Amino acid sequence: MKHDTITAIATPPGTGGIAVIRLSGPDALSILDKVWTGTSPLTFIPRTAHLGTINDPKDIPVDQTVAIYFKAPASFTGEDTIEISCHGSQFIQRQILHTLVSAGARTAQPGEFTRRAFLNGKIDLTQAEAIADLIAASSQAAHDIALTQTKGQFSDELRNLREQLLQLTSLLELELDFSEEDVQFADRKALVNLATHIRNRIQRLTDSYASGNVIKKGISVAIAGAPNTGKSTLLNHLAGDDKAIVSDIPGTTRDTIEATASINGLDFRFIDTAGLRHTNDSIENLGIGRALTQLTRADFILWLIDPSLPTDPQLDLLRNHLSTIRATPHLILLTKSDLGITVPSNLNKILPQDTPILRISALTGQGIDEIIRIITGKFLNAYNPRQETIIANARHYEALIHAQESIERVLNGLDNGLNSDMISADLREILHHLGTVTGSITTPDILTTIFSRFCIGK
Amino acid sequence: MKHDTITAIATPPGTGGIAVIRLSGPDALSILDKVWTGTSPLTFIPRTAHLGTINDPKDIPVDQTVAIYFKAPASFTGEDTIEISCHGSQFIQRQILHTLVSAGARTAQPGEFTRRAFLNGKIDLTQAEAIADLIAASSQAAHDIALTQTKGQFSDELRNLREQLLQLTSLLELELDFSEEDVQFADRKALVNLATHIRNRIQRLTDSYASGNVIKKGISVAIAGAPNTGKSTLLNHLAGDDKAIVSDIPGTTRDTIEATASINGLDFRFIDTAGLRHTNDSIENLGIGRALTQLTRADFILWLIDPSLPTDPQLDLLRNHLSTIRATPHLILLTKSDLGITVPSNLNKILPQDTPILRISALTGQGIDEIIRIITGKFLNAYNPRQETIIANARHYEALIHAQESIERVLNGLDNGLNSDMISADLREILHHLGTVTGSITTPDILTTIFSRFCIGK
Repeated sequence: MKHDTITAIATPPGTGGIAVIRLSGPDALSILDKVWTGTSPLTFIPRTAHLGTINDPKDIPVDQTVAIYFKAPASFTGEDTIEISCHGSQFIQRQILHTLVSAGARTAQPGEFTRRAFLNGKIDLTQAEAIADLIAASSQAAHDIALTQTKGQFSDELRNLREQLLQLTSLLELELDFSEEDVQFADRKALVNLATHIRNRIQRLTDSYASGNVIKKGISVAIAGAPNTGKSTLLNHLAGDDKAIVSDIPGTTRDTIEATASINGLDFRFIDTAGLRHTNDSIENLGIGRALTQLTRADFILWLIDPSLPTDPQLDLLRNHLSTIRATPHLILLTKSDLGITVPSNLNKILPQDTPILRISALTGQGIDEIIRIITGKFLNAYNPRQETIIANARHYEALIHAQESIERVLNGLDNGLNSDMISADLREILHHLGTVTGSITTPDILTTIFSRFCIGK
Repeated sequence: MKHDTITAIATPPGTGGIAVIRLSGPDALSILDKVWTGTSPLTFIPRTAHLGTINDPKDIPVDQTVAIYFKAPASFTGEDTIEISCHGSQFIQRQILHTLVSAGARTAQPGEFTRRAFLNGKIDLTQAEAIADLIAASSQAAHDIALTQTKGQFSDELRNLREQLLQLTSLLELELDFSEEDVQFADRKALVNLATHIRNRIQRLTDSYASGNVIKKGISVAIAGAPNTGKSTLLNHLAGDDKAIVSDIPGTTRDTIEATASINGLDFRFIDTAGLRHTNDSIENLGIGRALTQLTRADFILWLIDPSLPTDPQLDLLRNHLSTIRATPHLILLTKSDLGITVPSNLNKILPQDTPILRISALTGQGIDEIIRIITGKFLNAYNPRQETIIANARHYEALIHAQESIERVLNGLDNGLNSDMISADLREILHHLGTVTGSITTPDILTTIFSRFCIGK
């Protein structure tokens, strides 16, 4: 397919020292040649900076610029590409774009450069998606996941899986060819081992999504408990001035305070929920309803108990919400540890044995860092995003879940002596799902959905 | 003077497809070498793109980047400079900057790259200042003035002036040497001609400031007249949807509406002033006072008279404010021309003969474009910013006004047969003032003031 030549501002919108405008397509050189004063772009040496002036359609000089030519296929898009560095005024950026369009280029759609890189086989779909994630990443961990995937590690893993699946298929089909003779050619034991290995690898990927998704979006931590147990104080400690506070989001209701912070390479969103208690006040119950919603939606729950306050109502409250708490990673915090009050005796009766409990003091700072360590460990320590593939993309997760279901059917089939041709059908289905992830199987609609979330100029 | 190596993000702040980070100074190559995986920067071919990965101080990969080396002195700053293109996430931009600083670079002050370009003799001060103006320019005319000055046209003109002044000085000093012998060596007539020529050229520059300053800041147009003469309607027409509206600024008082628009290559700020009339209402008089202030501050006044309303009070009002109006470029507008009402007979008696009057109709659109043409012509047609030097910088204007005063004294001196040594003193003063403009005479304080208004990374 012959493409037209596209152009866009590649640097962030706004005014700066310099800006970069990209031009990609078969006519990149000839389009620049029409508007350029300096060494003719038609004689540009690839990957070398050339100084020249861009003149607008009325032949008025717009700016003195530096252009670099990346010759096809050795460019990001795989096409002839020129990157033009100009002075970073918005006027100049607009005028150069306008000039290039007047000379025959088309304004690029969001993500169109990356889309072309994919269509020209420079990168697969997981790498293309990782580029968008890389640009959006605001924490070290999210960045690491995306960077690893731009380098094609996930692609390599999928290619590897695909090879093993093809091996499994060919073994099975060999058996199929000879089935008339009722000869079990393939060693069923070896087949089961290979299928189990594939299942485990797919499962490791789908398991990683719980971490990957949370790392990508940031971790929401609900701070809950009875009124006056020190929730706001804890929030201030966790997202305090000594930490890298990114922003303070004023609550949508007077009952909710949120603060975001970047700690230990992760983005955190701390939510101070309304004091939970039993009340007949309908307005207050609305607030409590919201707090409960936040509990169920949070990635992590910190539940506060203040031993210096009456403990019975606090333990009642804990008991009422125990199933909600246990459905999410959580930590029970006993506040005011500096007062030296003993743990409420009934607490251990209410809580299951494996419940993590931590004594903290907002006064002395005891336990505060440990809270962060525990949360971070929960989501980060399970995986090393620089060495292992972590799934952080819902589309990938969905396809892998389908693949996982199919490989389970394959294993069951092998276990139950199912016919090889039925097992083969399941294997082909897995190959299909993996193909949608890498983009070897795709549709224009899927591509449009994926690339529309890119920024212009990428 | 040996400089350290500085670094900054050169592209606009924020997230984009790519971002560019600059590194300039004697250690640019060795600093990049410490954090770079790829072809060693120490072997970089100048002006050639090199692909490599930047690793943070913990040796964690930050991004795959493209680096281009501009070898001293063939770079913007005149020093070894490296431009690093990275993915445009804010996280990556911060991390690369942090990495380069950890490896020995210093974060650049605003304008520090341009300051170094000046200190290394790559550009003079007028060119350095023009770079800041170029980046800030939001209209075609302001852009053209700045671009012309970045190319050194103003510098050339000043150099030319300087040569003529030196010629004048040497002629005079020759005369001085022989003054004992009471011989007037130099032809006084030729001296006067040369000095007059210099005076005229300086004056053309100072005259251009009225246009240049207004073009740079945008033109404020006050729309005034008695209440209900159609001021708001006119404002909507002038800055209407069919024009490129840049923004609507809500008035600081309920009496003032402002709208900015970019028309014919100029930025306009239209101000709908409060209805001016005589009143004893003290609150209303406050608003009228503000309107009067706006009249005196405006770059252009449009004064509306509605012939379909009682004309006597309108003409009284016009008479009262006539001196204010005439102190500023202005245009009298007779509204509702579509009604075909004759011009108030007294109008010509009140207005001086040279007063420009235009009939307009908001209903038919008659005269609206003509208003813009007249205002544009007033500020733009006098000069061609792409061919002539236009002063748009208050510092340059001030120095040139001093030079102008001195050259007038020189002319008077020549006229009155003043002693050559006294005239020489004035000539030296002019050379001094021109020197402060180009920066051949400067102080660190002046440089700090000039470069502090630059953006970071330039």
